[in-house]
Amino acid sequence: MRTQLQHKIDNKTKPTGALGQLEAIALQVGLIQQTLSPVIKQPTILVFAADHGLADEKISPYPKDVTWQMAMNFVAGGAAISVFCRQNDIQLKVIDAGVDYDFPADSPIIPAKIARGSRNMRQEPAMSLEECEKAMASGREFVKAEADKGCNTIGFGEMGIGNTSPSSLLMHRFTGLPIETCTGAGAGMHGEQLTYKQQVLKEISEKYDPQSPLETLATFGGLEIAMMVGAMLEAKAQGMILLIDGFIATAALLTACQFDASTLDNALFCHQSEEKGHRLLLEHLKANPILQLGMRLGEGTGAAVALPVIQSALAFLNEMASFEDAGVSKE
Amino acid sequence: MRTQLQHKIDNKTKPTGALGQLEAIALQVGLIQQTLSPVIKQPTILVFAADHGLADEKISPYPKDVTWQMAMNFVAGGAAISVFCRQNDIQLKVIDAGVDYDFPADSPIIPAKIARGSRNMRQEPAMSLEECEKAMASGREFVKAEADKGCNTIGFGEMGIGNTSPSSLLMHRFTGLPIETCTGAGAGMHGEQLTYKQQVLKEISEKYDPQSPLETLATFGGLEIAMMVGAMLEAKAQGMILLIDGFIATAALLTACQFDASTLDNALFCHQSEEKGHRLLLEHLKANPILQLGMRLGEGTGAAVALPVIQSALAFLNEMASFEDAGVSKE
Repeated sequence: MRTQLQHKIDNKTKPTGALGQLEAIALQVGLIQQTLSPVIKQPTILVFAADHGLADEKISPYPKDVTWQMAMNFVAGGAAISVFCRQNDIQLKVIDAGVDYDFPADSPIIPAKIARGSRNMRQEPAMSLEECEKAMASGREFVKAEADKGCNTIGFGEMGIGNTSPSSLLMHRFTGLPIETCTGAGAGMHGEQLTYKQQVLKEISEKYDPQSPLETLATFGGLEIAMMVGAMLEAKAQGMILLIDGFIATAALLTACQFDASTLDNALFCHQSEEKGHRLLLEHLKANPILQLGMRLGEGTGAAVALPVIQSALAFLNEMASFEDAGVSKE
Repeated sequence: MRTQLQHKIDNKTKPTGALGQLEAIALQVGLIQQTLSPVIKQPTILVFAADHGLADEKISPYPKDVTWQMAMNFVAGGAAISVFCRQNDIQLKVIDAGVDYDFPADSPIIPAKIARGSRNMRQEPAMSLEECEKAMASGREFVKAEADKGCNTIGFGEMGIGNTSPSSLLMHRFTGLPIETCTGAGAGMHGEQLTYKQQVLKEISEKYDPQSPLETLATFGGLEIAMMVGAMLEAKAQGMILLIDGFIATAALLTACQFDASTLDNALFCHQSEEKGHRLLLEHLKANPILQLGMRLGEGTGAAVALPVIQSALAFLNEMASFEDAGVSKE
């Protein structure tokens, strides 16, 4: 299949390799779908929202309430992810993985609360093993339901005030890079605030020594991250395309790879975020991000903005003429 | 207007600056259109095609016939630019600025031949001043006609076997960078072939000493490049958005800026190409390209693939809720 795909790509009316990364994307998606004519069907972004006990330690400049407020904004259509999904015909679903708030019963936010936020890691592990497993299983279910309806492409977004911190801790544990290197400004911690955030995370990283991937995720993760990890593992099992957004989604993917390393094969890294650790995390995964727009918003925005570029890769593979068909001379 | 736009951008429900380059694009387009609610209307890509006498010196691995063959492929719908324009609802027009071929009378290729190719610069200037002026005036006319029909966004593409060479020469003259630095592989000149191409261009650069921008363009340019320069100047005069593609289109923009430096204000640099000189040329223009997909195809492909990202920038500016509207707490 790889040889056939490469042959098809190389016979399009262009110098060999002249479509650069679009050629790599076409090849990867062809391999994921095991076809010379891959297509994206019912692209869907799942946004997992949850609160973090660690937010009590003031590791984010925003108050915790912003988690539920933004979740409401997502479904009301006013957030960046809402706008980009509408623009690019992407189905958007917002899942309450563990927000510390009671959403109105008629809200389109999908209820799947495992708890009212994870625990404060400075004092105890973020989740129990049971909570972590429950979150992962729930994530799997959401993806399976989409696959059953014919969706073959899932983007992963998140919302949770404080959630760059668990992502930095997971990155630190699974890559071995120093915690300071993995810790950045998040939604806006600069100067002394950043130094303080780094100190808190260093203290937490030294407090625990979890061994298995599950234990590590339960200790340092968050409910939305654990649900995303389960969702990613299921998406890979279903042979879907995984659209990976920014720092937090990439940390979830890194975690998913500890459970099943082949998850990486189906992942398209959509955007390299401005968040400090993201470039290094992508390098660790040998990932070549599609966009580098200097965004640092999460929500799945990088995945939503990158989708048309991925569609361009599939369009050239499916629609461009070969040298022979077009009667164009070769080199 | 700048203050008002920045205020609107900063009040969207996201951390300040969190949409990165999309914010810069929204600001620029708002300033171009002098409105807080900019829109893209009837986006159109004009592909200017012409042959180059210099191709006789074997500075491209492809035969000259590929120019007309690819122009036919563009309008038949089988080329990369055809596919991407279809995907993103962009009107595509292919203009014969000087192809050394008689297109069939019923071809949708728009006839505007100034000559059957430019002259071989190794022997004489590429164009006479008169030809160059005629090509520029013709480019202006094409853009004016689109503006009159309501189009406010023009992308610039080109096709011409051998046309990285004039682009390198123009870059060398207008930036002062050494000709070797400005000369790259084009459609595939590597190793000794590249050294040869660099030697030929060095010889040409030393043969002439044109003074005015017009004289320089006539000496070292090409018919499609001269037409593109005129088209860019008119697009700026009409207050349109200019979508700049790769190395050749950027060299044309650099040339346009010698006639009217403010042309730069309306230019969005869509893609940083793999062609050697392009990164340096973008740096010279202090341009921040939207995409870096490692493409090196021209045709306007970078502009066509980048359009949805630009649309994302406008969509967030026009459609996202403010903190106040959405009831979200600020930092």
